[in-house]
Amino acid sequence: MGLLEGGPDPAGRLFSCSYSCRPGQGKARLHRASGDMAEPASRLVPPPPPPPGAPLARQPRLLATFSLHAGQRAGERATEREQLPAAAHLRAGLLSGATGDLPAPALLCLSESARASPTPAAAASPPAKQKGPCQNLTCFPPDTRCFGICDQGVVPVPLLWNQSILEQPVSFPHLVPRYNAFARDFIADCARRGQPFFLYYASHHTHYPQFASQEYTGQSPRGPFGDALLEFDGSVGRLLQALHDSGVDQNTLVFFTSDNGPSTMRMSRGGSSGLLKCGKGTTYEGGMREPAVAYWPGRIAPGVTHELASTLDLFPTLAAVAGVPLPNITLDGYDLSPVLFGNGKSPRQTMFYYPPAASQLLGAFAVRYGKYKAHFFTQGAFLSGTTPDQDCHGLTPLKAHEPPLLFDLEVDPAENYNLLRGAAVKPEVLAALKEVCLQKARFDQQMVFGESQLAQGSDPSLQPCCAPQCSPKPSCCRCPSAS
Amino acid sequence: MGLLEGGPDPAGRLFSCSYSCRPGQGKARLHRASGDMAEPASRLVPPPPPPPGAPLARQPRLLATFSLHAGQRAGERATEREQLPAAAHLRAGLLSGATGDLPAPALLCLSESARASPTPAAAASPPAKQKGPCQNLTCFPPDTRCFGICDQGVVPVPLLWNQSILEQPVSFPHLVPRYNAFARDFIADCARRGQPFFLYYASHHTHYPQFASQEYTGQSPRGPFGDALLEFDGSVGRLLQALHDSGVDQNTLVFFTSDNGPSTMRMSRGGSSGLLKCGKGTTYEGGMREPAVAYWPGRIAPGVTHELASTLDLFPTLAAVAGVPLPNITLDGYDLSPVLFGNGKSPRQTMFYYPPAASQLLGAFAVRYGKYKAHFFTQGAFLSGTTPDQDCHGLTPLKAHEPPLLFDLEVDPAENYNLLRGAAVKPEVLAALKEVCLQKARFDQQMVFGESQLAQGSDPSLQPCCAPQCSPKPSCCRCPSAS
Repeated sequence: MGLLEGGPDPAGRLFSCSYSCRPGQGKARLHRASGDMAEPASRLVPPPPPPPGAPLARQPRLLATFSLHAGQRAGERATEREQLPAAAHLRAGLLSGATGDLPAPALLCLSESARASPTPAAAASPPAKQKGPCQNLTCFPPDTRCFGICDQGVVPVPLLWNQSILEQPVSFPHLVPRYNAFARDFIADCARRGQPFFLYYASHHTHYPQFASQEYTGQSPRGPFGDALLEFDGSVGRLLQALHDSGVDQNTLVFFTSDNGPSTMRMSRGGSSGLLKCGKGTTYEGGMREPAVAYWPGRIAPGVTHELASTLDLFPTLAAVAGVPLPNITLDGYDLSPVLFGNGKSPRQTMFYYPPAASQLLGAFAVRYGKYKAHFFTQGAFLSGTTPDQDCHGLTPLKAHEPPLLFDLEVDPAENYNLLRGAAVKPEVLAALKEVCLQKARFDQQMVFGESQLAQGSDPSLQPCCAPQCSPKPSCCRCPSAS
Repeated sequence: MGLLEGGPDPAGRLFSCSYSCRPGQGKARLHRASGDMAEPASRLVPPPPPPPGAPLARQPRLLATFSLHAGQRAGERATEREQLPAAAHLRAGLLSGATGDLPAPALLCLSESARASPTPAAAASPPAKQKGPCQNLTCFPPDTRCFGICDQGVVPVPLLWNQSILEQPVSFPHLVPRYNAFARDFIADCARRGQPFFLYYASHHTHYPQFASQEYTGQSPRGPFGDALLEFDGSVGRLLQALHDSGVDQNTLVFFTSDNGPSTMRMSRGGSSGLLKCGKGTTYEGGMREPAVAYWPGRIAPGVTHELASTLDLFPTLAAVAGVPLPNITLDGYDLSPVLFGNGKSPRQTMFYYPPAASQLLGAFAVRYGKYKAHFFTQGAFLSGTTPDQDCHGLTPLKAHEPPLLFDLEVDPAENYNLLRGAAVKPEVLAALKEVCLQKARFDQQMVFGESQLAQGSDPSLQPCCAPQCSPKPSCCRCPSAS
């Protein structure tokens, strides 16, 4: 979830950067990878205290980014692959127009998967597959251990304030109350200073393993997953209350969305994609389609839209709302202002779906074009296991479809009834097929792949350790919280 | 959907009988059959004009019953198997305490599947498999023919007013505007007379084939199914508006529910059970679980409940609200008043699931016990075809499970993760298993099966025909509306 305090004043600014940035990396796009293999961490960046005598109105702030990470459709988090570069580029835009120095960012967060320190260089480091080892950690008070398997052979997941480790491993039952207090104080502080702000919250709550604080533990008939959702729901409520209490609820855009579908490999701990096909790691709708809520009293009319939008669009949209110029690179996102504030029509007509391991040879696996979706390639994913649909499972191999599978998602969101099966194909369907094939060919032709960061391997020395000189690593990196 | 005007006065009465009744049929229960093979018709019973000089306050009225019939979870109709006997017994209860004669019922409805006339004797006649032939009928104006296959060899579906045929076949595009006007006038008339009323609406809208009037045709991106839903949604809105306009919205209980899951055999025209397993014709949740909304401003607190309830409970609940004594027979329903108006706890702890062709030899196929559900037998159904889950399909044979499949529906509503699979079964799960086995054995032992009405065969001479003497039947039974 993102909170952007702007208001109708176009001079309102979006200040962003929890990590330093490397703007303008050639033509490498800010592109949303699918069903992410990334399991990043929350980042909460508080405003630093103003230097004595500094002109407050000129003090831009990256404050914090909020979002969701989840194996449940109720809320998931956008991956670093777009969020971090987006934050970096926003900061670049600000820097180009700023007349003063940006303050150093401040940060309360879990480490970037405990695989790399959140130094400036880490902004481009690859997200890891899990958010860190959770063995023998307590996920629910008083002493319910985290369930299942976590990363092995890496340092315990630390809690960071800026670049300092507050505690290692983090205490999950205390984490969200800390986030809540941090966010409340941050909003109140910005409001008091009259500063625009950008708050980004990457909730872990629906992600495996789930956890919760005392207040929410054992409260839901849904079990641990439900308790975690309850705590997340509570934290959203507290954010909205904080906006209200600070008197900025009427000029703050609140955006809630997610990144990938349920990790049904985790069974009932992994969530559900409802009527959508498969889940995380696939390019079916269950892996890719997300809920989204945009809230801005007085500016966004209550209602429901079926227009097409993507997390790729958040960066251009927020930049437009905040009056920040876009960087001089190719963007795949659109400014959603018409959907949110205008005639309701989306500038986006297409969406290109990539698998976890995108391939230049194959290009986009699937293409959304208006109400149609064409699958040129399909493949199961182990993350989408344990459901009755064999197409979802990890052993279901890559399959090319020529012609593609074509579905009308308005009528058949479950991608169950291929419009091209059977003898009689309607003329409008044939026309859509041709158009979608052209869209894919054009997009594949123009797409410039960035260098694979994952292929660079990992550097254990970059793992954040509260006792840098200790031995043997990684197990010695343990420092209980001072508080 | 049912509308019951009662108010907190316990002397409020529920007056009901669109068909005459045969009360007290031994121990035969009012039992809900599953995933119905029945496709009944709407019944709308208007109040007859009061006889001159009659004491109005003593004039009980069965007015009309509203409900939904659907292949979509948004709304489906309770089958005759409980609704008609329930209406009959309610009338019996009234008769026993009534000091005057009940007026003859009045009725605006589609025929009982065009297989039997809605005479008093028809109250116990079996519901037919389809609601009548629809070949070459117009389902959407101006001239979109009804889609697919309907009943063959029976008279065209007639529209009835009491026992008179208004038109045969019915004009689907004009049907709902007629229902709407009828319901509005009925509510207004009752309110003017100060009479309690009971209105039952069995919507066809999500049932195959879908239809709609001019106002809603072509309006939904969901296609014909969506247009039909739009019209249904509109008719619900008109009912609520009628209650408001007549000043009785504050003392009317509105109940909205459904009977069976989607007929996915009809593909995208059949609906979806969302995350629930399979659909119509099965005893999985997708075939049996239904949405329900109870609305009574000032008496029912807004909220959501996970308590267990069944359409079997509507009769005892409505009888209790209206102060009508229950008949002296064994009932499977509970008075839901505690859920609706009290502490929120349901008196129902179990639910027994029967397949379309219930068998005395096998008894209940599945048993719900609190949050647990045990499947003793499973079987696919052709009505649940075309989805990726093989368990749902018509060729999936009857299978006995010993021990049963056991699911926690709070955590796993998709019935995907059998709690008894694997080595370690938790003690509380084992205790639940034993209890649910006892519940089934006790219920099977006590259940007295009624005589099969379907096995009696059909009598073509009972098919309603607007030109009784015409030939050759059934095709000659055609009379355009006078209006």
